[in-house]
Amino acid sequence: MTTPITFYFDFSSPYGYLASERIEAIATRFGRQVDWRPILLSVVFKETGGTPLIKIPFKGEYSLRDFARSARFMNVPYTHPTHFPVSSKHAARTYYWLQEHHPAQAVAFLHATYRAYFSAGQDISNLDTVLDLAVAQGADRAALNEALAGQALKERLQVECATALQKGVFGSPFMFVDGEAFFGADRLPQIEHWLATGGF
Amino acid sequence: MTTPITFYFDFSSPYGYLASERIEAIATRFGRQVDWRPILLSVVFKETGGTPLIKIPFKGEYSLRDFARSARFMNVPYTHPTHFPVSSKHAARTYYWLQEHHPAQAVAFLHATYRAYFSAGQDISNLDTVLDLAVAQGADRAALNEALAGQALKERLQVECATALQKGVFGSPFMFVDGEAFFGADRLPQIEHWLATGGF
Repeated sequence: MTTPITFYFDFSSPYGYLASERIEAIATRFGRQVDWRPILLSVVFKETGGTPLIKIPFKGEYSLRDFARSARFMNVPYTHPTHFPVSSKHAARTYYWLQEHHPAQAVAFLHATYRAYFSAGQDISNLDTVLDLAVAQGADRAALNEALAGQALKERLQVECATALQKGVFGSPFMFVDGEAFFGADRLPQIEHWLATGGF
Repeated sequence: MTTPITFYFDFSSPYGYLASERIEAIATRFGRQVDWRPILLSVVFKETGGTPLIKIPFKGEYSLRDFARSARFMNVPYTHPTHFPVSSKHAARTYYWLQEHHPAQAVAFLHATYRAYFSAGQDISNLDTVLDLAVAQGADRAALNEALAGQALKERLQVECATALQKGVFGSPFMFVDGEAFFGADRLPQIEHWLATGGF
């Protein structure tokens, strides 16, 4: 019995998107599942003092170039969003709602939403856009819309962010393999090696 | 005629050390030289607002683990220094002095100094330690000691830091291949791919 790879991410994170396109193939190769955990970096940064990459002097300009180059290197389609970064709260809450009510749709929604934002030019901070993406996976628009307006889903996302912080998460993607923490899409080769060797 | 790979680094940077152990093999494979450029991150951070990794909440603890794990992944000997980070001004100035007067010793000194700090437990912020390391490569202790007390070497290092900042350098290692910027030891695979494909 193996434990899943826990994959913390923000739907507005370029490196989270890039890793999300590759982590399942790695997990599958080693008989693992992926436990997806969307969080809000805005909430995390309040606690850690972090700053969105592109707002950091010098590093911001480099990052814009590195997002696109890393995507080409990993062979993942990428078009930098016009609005960036954006609030991903509707997307994150929708993921947890789907996971609870229609688990088969949750992961499909996750990938569709990441691709909509980082490849198809859609603004995933927009509630209607998120509802459209969920409906396209089979979700009931009215039920989801009602849930998104309620308190329970907000609290669920708050708990996920608080739990992530307790585990030391400070960015996206942030992955755990058997308790070992890996930060960044560029740590996927180390994750593969960790799984292949049982830790190194 | 190909241009060298410019390799900006701080002698107190773990990822700079890891990359320094691998960049020459990559460069050689593609007929390139390495143009080593030690700088002081303390000077760079004054301009960029950067912070030493291990002083960043959450990220600091992770980094300590990642330094050692990345070293194992890259198969580079690594023992985290007792005193870290330290001032690397003597080491950086010594490198430029050797480069001017005894170029053949400069790169050997560079590797010896990095290994002394990150593998052999020596404190490279200590002037005598740096002098010993240079003398071991054949340098004249008295001449170097005098040069390190003078103004010219201080100014040389200041100019290197200022030039690095003008080129957008904000951390270590920071590498340029034909004008393309790569930050971090984890970008070595992208550098290899860049050299193999002529840019991607």
